[in-house]
Amino acid sequence: MKIIIDAFGGDNAPLEIIKGSLDAKKELGIDLIFVGDENKIKECAKENGLDIGGIEIIHTEEVFTMEDDPTTLLRAKKNTSMALGFKALKEGRGDAFASAGSSGGMVVGATLIAKRIKGIKRVAFAPVMPKAEGFFMLCDGGANNECRPEMIDEFALMGSVYMNKVMGIKNPRVGQANVGTEDTKGGQFQNDCFNLLKANENINFIGNIEARDIPFDAADVIVCDGFTGNVILKLYEGVAMALVNKIKGIFKKSLKNKLAAAMVLGDMKEFKKSMDYNEYGGAPILGASKPVFKIHGSAKANTVKNALKLTKAFVESDIIKDIEESVKNKETKEEN
Amino acid sequence: MKIIIDAFGGDNAPLEIIKGSLDAKKELGIDLIFVGDENKIKECAKENGLDIGGIEIIHTEEVFTMEDDPTTLLRAKKNTSMALGFKALKEGRGDAFASAGSSGGMVVGATLIAKRIKGIKRVAFAPVMPKAEGFFMLCDGGANNECRPEMIDEFALMGSVYMNKVMGIKNPRVGQANVGTEDTKGGQFQNDCFNLLKANENINFIGNIEARDIPFDAADVIVCDGFTGNVILKLYEGVAMALVNKIKGIFKKSLKNKLAAAMVLGDMKEFKKSMDYNEYGGAPILGASKPVFKIHGSAKANTVKNALKLTKAFVESDIIKDIEESVKNKETKEEN
Repeated sequence: MKIIIDAFGGDNAPLEIIKGSLDAKKELGIDLIFVGDENKIKECAKENGLDIGGIEIIHTEEVFTMEDDPTTLLRAKKNTSMALGFKALKEGRGDAFASAGSSGGMVVGATLIAKRIKGIKRVAFAPVMPKAEGFFMLCDGGANNECRPEMIDEFALMGSVYMNKVMGIKNPRVGQANVGTEDTKGGQFQNDCFNLLKANENINFIGNIEARDIPFDAADVIVCDGFTGNVILKLYEGVAMALVNKIKGIFKKSLKNKLAAAMVLGDMKEFKKSMDYNEYGGAPILGASKPVFKIHGSAKANTVKNALKLTKAFVESDIIKDIEESVKNKETKEEN
Repeated sequence: MKIIIDAFGGDNAPLEIIKGSLDAKKELGIDLIFVGDENKIKECAKENGLDIGGIEIIHTEEVFTMEDDPTTLLRAKKNTSMALGFKALKEGRGDAFASAGSSGGMVVGATLIAKRIKGIKRVAFAPVMPKAEGFFMLCDGGANNECRPEMIDEFALMGSVYMNKVMGIKNPRVGQANVGTEDTKGGQFQNDCFNLLKANENINFIGNIEARDIPFDAADVIVCDGFTGNVILKLYEGVAMALVNKIKGIFKKSLKNKLAAAMVLGDMKEFKKSMDYNEYGGAPILGASKPVFKIHGSAKANTVKNALKLTKAFVESDIIKDIEESVKNKETKEEN
């Protein structure tokens, strides 16, 4: 298996991307293609004593930045490392593409360069997130601000297949993010989504879930439009960060508190790890016709490695075929 | 000043409501009217050694429950303590009405019994919430799942007036909850709201804010539709609860950890207090033509007292007149 990696995506590129990719290569036995400035990649590897011998490099000096308008990936920015990574994926030079660069760019590239699965209306940005115990998937986490109910129904299907085959959750429970648990909660949009989800025989829909229950064991796949999903994703991170900062402040406040902190250090580290996004590497872009994985923008080597582990599982699971089949079956059913 | 109180609203009614109200009466020098079952109120007071002598009671045995459809407040449930509280408010028997009962009921009562301020399209549920330092207002926190941009513009105005005059925040910064900080972020709805907010000379609009920044110092008044606001409100609470539970678990894990917990106990209590909703008592219902305050459903006596303190400030601020004036001025301007 060969994974194409954007060596110049994310806050810590290229060093942490290269490091994490090499760790993944060693640990998982995968082959790599780096996309980016060949000289810089070689220099960076040399300076840090990293062996990149035998790894193919697709050279370009251009980088797609966080400030770039996502839609420019197709024309003005078509020679950036992200765009060329998608191009290489499309041409079949690798089995998957991963980048820690702009999420918007990744969604555009997945949709318009890698292309969508036939019959799928929109790709979804689907981060796997920590909860009190374990994890859940949020779908859509921000690719589509405005959705139609049929899209939410597709997100539910794609998320379920991914959670089952890649993350190992049998018969994953799908819940709709809503303002209450009753069937009729929310506006017209949520009501229409509810009816479609309820009628979908290919998913295990458990109904509406309240935002308060998301960090607990509300559901395995939480579906909503991308605007709501992005608010959930970012608020989740923000509240956790604010609280962790407060606790850090307490533990540094006095000598006595510092002593107390030292006594619970191991457990607090484990706690931090259990609430850490980076454990799950990032988010698959579901609905693209080839495996595309968005690595966390702030990823360091270990997160990059985790992300590539999931990217490998994504490829091996062959879920794109499953999704294609489901869409076909649905269309056949609707025609009959 | 006389405040009408639903003695049978909330999880801890009537005891904690009565207790908190009596504390408020003593501390703030306000007069009270209790609405609810007279015998039960008297019994409860007697059993708990509370002196309710001289307090007027509007008697009814019926209670508006959390399971009741909010719209039934007008007819089928018009004799519940909540409905009769609103009726008494409308008739001028008190200066404000407060209840810890159903938020949906409170919104319906404020809209259809107390009635909206002339020219205001919708009332908003506007909780004041804790952030890393201090507090902010969320408006709308869930009264209106679906909004038009003009409503968001009104929420911004009403929230600003409240934060200024009741909460003492000079020139409060208004931000729109969105998926990014750039002016054009979000869908068509957020773009339309942005333009209206930007053109509004009566508020201090600072632009779009990302959900990640809400727990920090993003803005003093955060506006959005009630669906998004309710998700923010409840997720905020859920994530904080999940993290606090985890930390509690760590502190109880071993003898060593229990010892560490004892060492930081005072600071942790202060931390918990700083993140506690109950400090702010609940949420005003903005846009009603008389002061209406929703007390936290889980309020105990101290929270009830805090809520009545804010209700008193709400009455004294005379902001309903300010809002009326602003609406009139706007209409005059638009006509010219």
